[in-house]
Amino acid sequence: MNVLIVYAHPEPKSLNGSLKDFAVKHLEDAGHVVKVSDLYAMKWKAPLDASDSMDGQACERFNPALDSKLAFENGRQAKDLAEEQDKLQWADAVILQFPLWWFSMPAILKGWVERVYAYGFAYGVGEHSDTHWGDRYGEGTLAGKRAMLMVTTGGWESHYSARGINGPIDDILFPIQHGILYYPGFDVLPPFVIYRTDRVGEAGFTKACETLAERLDKLWTTEPIAFRPQNAGAYDIPALTLRADIAPGQTGFSMHSEQ
Amino acid sequence: MNVLIVYAHPEPKSLNGSLKDFAVKHLEDAGHVVKVSDLYAMKWKAPLDASDSMDGQACERFNPALDSKLAFENGRQAKDLAEEQDKLQWADAVILQFPLWWFSMPAILKGWVERVYAYGFAYGVGEHSDTHWGDRYGEGTLAGKRAMLMVTTGGWESHYSARGINGPIDDILFPIQHGILYYPGFDVLPPFVIYRTDRVGEAGFTKACETLAERLDKLWTTEPIAFRPQNAGAYDIPALTLRADIAPGQTGFSMHSEQ
Repeated sequence: MNVLIVYAHPEPKSLNGSLKDFAVKHLEDAGHVVKVSDLYAMKWKAPLDASDSMDGQACERFNPALDSKLAFENGRQAKDLAEEQDKLQWADAVILQFPLWWFSMPAILKGWVERVYAYGFAYGVGEHSDTHWGDRYGEGTLAGKRAMLMVTTGGWESHYSARGINGPIDDILFPIQHGILYYPGFDVLPPFVIYRTDRVGEAGFTKACETLAERLDKLWTTEPIAFRPQNAGAYDIPALTLRADIAPGQTGFSMHSEQ
Repeated sequence: MNVLIVYAHPEPKSLNGSLKDFAVKHLEDAGHVVKVSDLYAMKWKAPLDASDSMDGQACERFNPALDSKLAFENGRQAKDLAEEQDKLQWADAVILQFPLWWFSMPAILKGWVERVYAYGFAYGVGEHSDTHWGDRYGEGTLAGKRAMLMVTTGGWESHYSARGINGPIDDILFPIQHGILYYPGFDVLPPFVIYRTDRVGEAGFTKACETLAERLDKLWTTEPIAFRPQNAGAYDIPALTLRADIAPGQTGFSMHSEQ
């Protein structure tokens, strides 16, 4: 199978770098083909702007969505982002790997999402009607592919537990797992998370690699998070609120997956 | 009073640009002093890396936290980020203004946070003991100042409601409001949010400005979100889990503010 790792850490000899190297070798040893988008090494341009079209801005006012749509439709996207779209199309599974900085992905990876996720590619796809509100949240260009986060945190596991001060890790990752991965169609696997990175010694690293190896071996068989598809009847359209008889009385992120 | 607006939109003639211009004028007319960090206009460098210290990386391996600490302590930080820290120190209130892209802030603003929030400035501050786990979540360098988000979304208000498919707006903004603003000490005001930006016509813009004016007039009197301070007894240290007798049985983001 084809695996794309989108990797965002500035130091190759970091824990993240070592885990990435381990993942590449482990997947290749199992016969898979791996590509890595090493965003820092690529000097990836983070900010979305008018130079993302070869033609520059389309109208007097730069409109992020409209300019993206035109560049995508007309084959005039900047080369770097079109190449990343090709890698996504090529991949059977995609891993986003990053240290959790300020409770989200690093800026350089956020900029990868913003620029590569063009209008017509990752959003603005499919028809809008009374029963179908675009191909998104379970449908879309990347449907049929699998995705997984590989995340490290400085904080302790308890700080990210159900009653931990940072908030539960599943909720912190929801805008990424649901909003960035499930949105354009990915099946999203539970995340691989390493906590308290400053205490991962040699033994900790060996253990992390063992767990990671298991997760990678099961990349094709692990049950994805059971997010609810938008257009299969669970949501009222166009309000896009969960039907009153589903998870009645509940609110919040967790309601959007079947328990 | 002194107000800093950190503003992240690539198009000056956008809705965001117009709201920013309105806010600056309204605040100045009321006698306040306003500074704007217009990140796109400043060509803000988004990725955190070794060039954030004038001396380059400190050791053989670049360590984001350690290198940040050394550069901050030794007055060797890159000029652009040190200037932003000065603006934060100068401000009585800070507004982060941005369009919600993929359920978070634009990459260029995330990179502002990562680089300006140095070790010793926004984190790694204060003692760690059995009763005090650093000056954070309610204490810290920026304590006594107020902060507010000004956010626009393409999606509808119902999509961000309690049972909306994108998740409740308060939960989507929690990693920013709690994790980025409350963490280094800000009192965080409820956000100012404009939904469905493609339908904001002339009448909508006038109404938005009226609401915004009210919010700006009350910048010093609005009750902040009642996030629970970390070191005042509500959390067990060092697990940093909410004490079992507070909000018993509850989990998730909302538990971290007093209802």
